[in-house]
Amino acid sequence: MVDINDVREARERISPYIHQTPILQSELLNEVAGAELFFKCENFQKVGAFKARGATNAVQLLSSEDLPRGVATHSSGNHGAALAWAASIRNTSACIVVPSNAKQVKKDAIAAYGAEIVECEPTLPARESALHQVVKETGANFVPPYDDERIIAGQGTVALEMLEQMENLDAALIPVGGGGLLAGCLLGFSGSSIETYGIEPEGADDAYRSVASGERIKAHSPDSICDGLLTTLGEGNFPIIRDRIADILLVSDQEVIDAMYLLWTRLKIVVEPSSAITLAGLLGNRDLFAGKRVGLVLTGGNVDLKNLPFDQLD
Amino acid sequence: MVDINDVREARERISPYIHQTPILQSELLNEVAGAELFFKCENFQKVGAFKARGATNAVQLLSSEDLPRGVATHSSGNHGAALAWAASIRNTSACIVVPSNAKQVKKDAIAAYGAEIVECEPTLPARESALHQVVKETGANFVPPYDDERIIAGQGTVALEMLEQMENLDAALIPVGGGGLLAGCLLGFSGSSIETYGIEPEGADDAYRSVASGERIKAHSPDSICDGLLTTLGEGNFPIIRDRIADILLVSDQEVIDAMYLLWTRLKIVVEPSSAITLAGLLGNRDLFAGKRVGLVLTGGNVDLKNLPFDQLD
Repeated sequence: MVDINDVREARERISPYIHQTPILQSELLNEVAGAELFFKCENFQKVGAFKARGATNAVQLLSSEDLPRGVATHSSGNHGAALAWAASIRNTSACIVVPSNAKQVKKDAIAAYGAEIVECEPTLPARESALHQVVKETGANFVPPYDDERIIAGQGTVALEMLEQMENLDAALIPVGGGGLLAGCLLGFSGSSIETYGIEPEGADDAYRSVASGERIKAHSPDSICDGLLTTLGEGNFPIIRDRIADILLVSDQEVIDAMYLLWTRLKIVVEPSSAITLAGLLGNRDLFAGKRVGLVLTGGNVDLKNLPFDQLD
Repeated sequence: MVDINDVREARERISPYIHQTPILQSELLNEVAGAELFFKCENFQKVGAFKARGATNAVQLLSSEDLPRGVATHSSGNHGAALAWAASIRNTSACIVVPSNAKQVKKDAIAAYGAEIVECEPTLPARESALHQVVKETGANFVPPYDDERIIAGQGTVALEMLEQMENLDAALIPVGGGGLLAGCLLGFSGSSIETYGIEPEGADDAYRSVASGERIKAHSPDSICDGLLTTLGEGNFPIIRDRIADILLVSDQEVIDAMYLLWTRLKIVVEPSSAITLAGLLGNRDLFAGKRVGLVLTGGNVDLKNLPFDQLD
């Protein structure tokens, strides 16, 4: 079972390759929120997203026997780009199964890191079937996007940095899709008193329903502007989250767009909707965080600049 | 005559109020440029632009007798917002004359800092006439946007920070509109061997023509996407620039848009066209900077997110 020691080892392993990303603050956003906010800027991470951490951890752990067969995965974008990049560092190949509705900008990024792209229908069974075919044909090492101990440990290194960079944190807000980052950070925060909240789109609320019912929901027809959070909560991720989470908070797409606009205009940074959801979750639950010191993970900055949602502002 | 000692004193004076802004780098942009680039991120400055520096210097220098009458200026945006903000810190009033074609997002920012806005025709004579009227009626202290020693000294503090944050710089690229930042930085770099280039829009090339002819051009019908660089080179700014500049480089609006896209997608930051012009100037003159260590000032990040130029990409 993966624990904080795996997260600490992952940090040692990946630190030569990834960035320790900066923290940003804004007086105006603190005023709007009624709390002291610390933004962990994983949009400045390698490949523009925290996914570089888990992918690097998994690829660096491959043995010299496994390495030459390359890696493969299914991904709607950032994990695919991260795995392609991590594979290129070890001079091995990557094949990424991508749902046909993935953003073009994310497909372009995967291709730019030299990976092969295989398109499939945008369902989990179609993704798994296409991936199975790739692995069968090439012998590539499957590196899952989130339901994997190497990935969970790698993503959890975000929390270790937050503990060092943000003193006396009361709460942390972390997006939840498949649950790799959230489970990893919950492990990374082990032993601290930080109340950790998962933030999830209303239109992709399987983690919320899973935690509420105590049983992992698998039937899931997600619909949200948060294209990084459409995946189904992972089997290995669920118990870690269920046992340690303060709560899962739901957010509408409109709230995400409004929060994204605030982040772009006030912090002057490019973040994707799946990142802005943490600020949206805070602003929709101000009472919960009033006067507290809150860390918010901004998970990535890979957006299509030709197709932004700011004409839909409230 | 303003010199490096004024810049050093300005730094002491304004440092309690402004940010020492960070430097960003990108391996990919270094590869594209064939040089080592250091981006000075004044888009993260107070009010989202370097203009906070000069305005703060001027307002902090007001005597206790002058202060109660408030301040006034004409500005297409960032200087107006910066002066409004700097006035609010000393609890005095600000009145900003704004050309009718100024971006709404910049007018909103001025209003948000509590200043009064007076609109006028978008010509220099109309701006000066409206400002004259305001000063006559209210007795407000005029703080010019660039042709002013307090402003030049304040903006020059950017160069002092660059000298500390970027070691062994070979060259610096700085946007030029009225010439406050460029003249100030040339003074700030005094005694160093840094070759400093002013970067100017093709459609607003009065600094280029002034330096080429040795005489300041006043007839000017600017047309460029760089809304912060439409002003005419200042009288006091011109000799400083003429005597110290390596060259003025011209850039088309299309090159600005392409460079802006690179900065947004690779650095994950929001910068305005008047900032992106420095990268455009470098990419249009690669031979000049090949293999060198180059500092580029990103002057501000105040853009209208509902009206971005990325549908005009090459």
